[in-house]
Amino acid sequence: MEQGVRRLVLDVLKPHEPDLPELATRLSCIDGVDGVNISLVEIDQDTESVRITVEGDRINLHNLKDTMKDCGASIHSIDEVSVGKKLIKKTLT
Amino acid sequence: MEQGVRRLVLDVLKPHEPDLPELATRLSCIDGVDGVNISLVEIDQDTESVRITVEGDRINLHNLKDTMKDCGASIHSIDEVSVGKKLIKKTLT
Amino acid sequence: MEQGVRRLVLDVLKPHEPDLPELATRLSCIDGVDGVNISLVEIDQDTESVRITVEGDRINLHNLKDTMKDCGASIHSIDEVSVGKKLIKKTLT
Amino acid sequence: MEQGVRRLVLDVLKPHEPDLPELATRLSCIDGVDGVNISLVEIDQDTESVRITVEGDRINLHNLKDTMKDCGASIHSIDEVSVGKKLIKKTLT
Amino acid sequence: MEQGVRRLVLDVLKPHEPDLPELATRLSCIDGVDGVNISLVEIDQDTESVRITVEGDRINLHNLKDTMKDCGASIHSIDEVSVGKKLIKKTLT
Amino acid sequence: MEQGVRRLVLDVLKPHEPDLPELATRLSCIDGVDGVNISLVEIDQDTESVRITVEGDRINLHNLKDTMKDCGASIHSIDEVSVGKKLIKKTLT
Amino acid sequence: MEQGVRRLVLDVLKPHEPDLPELATRLSCIDGVDGVNISLVEIDQDTESVRITVEGDRINLHNLKDTMKDCGASIHSIDEVSVGKKLIKKTLT
Repeated sequence: MEQGVRRLVLDVLKPHEPDLPELATRLSCIDGVDGVNISLVEIDQDTESVRITVEGDRINLHNLKDTMKDCGASIHSIDEVSVGKKLIKKTLT
Repeated sequence: MEQGVRRLVLDVLKPHEPDLPELATRLSCIDGVDGVNISLVEIDQDTESVRITVEGDRINLHNLKDTMKDCGASIHSIDEVSVGKKLIKKTLT
Repeated sequence: MEQGVRRLVLDVLKPHEPDLPELATRLSCIDGVDGVNISLVEIDQDTESVRITVEGDRINLHNLKDTMKDCGASIHSIDEVSVGKKLIKKTLT
Repeated sequence: MEQGVRRLVLDVLKPHEPDLPELATRLSCIDGVDGVNISLVEIDQDTESVRITVEGDRINLHNLKDTMKDCGASIHSIDEVSVGKKLIKKTLT
Repeated sequence: MEQGVRRLVLDVLKPHEPDLPELATRLSCIDGVDGVNISLVEIDQDTESVRITVEGDRINLHNLKDTMKDCGASIHSIDEVSVGKKLIKKTLT
Repeated sequence: MEQGVRRLVLDVLKPHEPDLPELATRLSCIDGVDGVNISLVEIDQDTESVRITVEGDRINLHNLKDTMKDCGASIHSIDEVSVGKKLIKKTLT
Repeated sequence: MEQGVRRLVLDVLKPHEPDLPELATRLSCIDGVDGVNISLVEIDQDTESVRITVEGDRINLHNLKDTMKDCGASIHSIDEVSVGKKLIKKTLT
């Protein structure tokens, strides 16, 4: 049986609003999401770079992308993804 | 059901008074807060930069901002926020 | 009795499509695979370098290579492999 | 209910006497203190810089300051404080 | 009673074939071997440097050397060895 | 009730004799000492610098200093001391 | 009662023969030794520098020195020793 996504780490550019707690709360409501962490990387005048980690079980990527779009946030890159019944973290070089 | 905020890391500028134990004690009384850590980053003549970590369950951000204001402290940035039934810590690059 | 492969770390070059969640999902369906992590190393115009970690029990390498090929991904090198009833991780120098 | 102080890290300047074991023993006798660690940072001719960590439950700051004063030690800065039913350690940048 | 070898870390030069999964699988079949990890250190045109970690109980070194030879691999150095009923890892300087 | 010393880290200069195992054994016999570690820092022609860690319960400092003296060792500095029913380790800056 | 040596870290110069597995095996047979780790530090033409860690209970130092001598190995320095009913590891500066 196909396994769902368990963990995602995203590099995201967002406007100042919604703020981090608001965006994290919205993401935490998505189907299959158990927890969200957003960390600030850099603040510019109109935007901020953040690193978003999402963990859960069969995370609904479609809804996640929609929520990002609704918040005016653009995903620069997916930096890490984990799939499968065993959660594997990134292997450092 | 919407999940509340579980963890916040704040970059804050504050006057010397109230001192760190006093400010931490006030923050620990806020609804949903289970623990507070304040670490000194830099002392200047009239102000000090501190890093505040707050953990709990459905932390009341409104009260938190009010308490900060009452203490003359200004939040420079929210550096990290965690939301959801699973507490996710920051992913290092 | 011959032991199967328990863990693989691969250095892979892939086109942008399928994206990381899609590729990880396909790899997670392979016989003997319990978990997959894909981490982004570098993005170029048409391709991206990724580091893929696969864990499981008697991972079917033949299917793994076929799936990579189907996705247009080429394995640059096998950086780490673990075999045996005890899972041994890489020893740092 | 107001929570007491659980952990303090202090940057302190002290004369050579009382020595570290003596000062630590005195601090350990203060109300609410469960453990004390004193680490030497630098020795000068007449004074020494030390880093004092105190953990406990509702640590009596008033008594702590009095004890410091009695020992001729001056608190240069409070580098870290933890309050609340959950003990939160410093978040590294 | 004499204790057998519990852990070995080897610095090895090998031809590209057999590849890492194949070599690891062969080594995992040796008497007394419970697990094998092979990590790539450097690839050259005709050869590759690898770091091999073998754990087990009374590892048969004779068979291990024979298997290496059969695979065209030469042991440059034994970087670490553990013997005894308690497995001791390398002490960092 | 006054708490005793639980842990001491000492910077010590000693002659080559008694050697490290002999000195550690003598220190381990002191009242209240449960364990001793001596690490070599630097060897000179007639002396060696060592770092001594002693853990226990109500370590008898008087006896410890006497034993050091008997062995011709001089305590350059007490680098760390822990007192109290909870053993607190050094807080890194 | 006098406590025995629990842990030793030695800086040793040895000829190429006996090799590491052979030397480790011989050391593991000494009275009071539960485990031995030998790590290679540097290889020269006729000799090699190794770091030997021995753990056990009341390790017989006399036999250890004899075995070293029998193997043509010379102990350059004892870098660490632990004695007592509680095993204390080296404290980093």
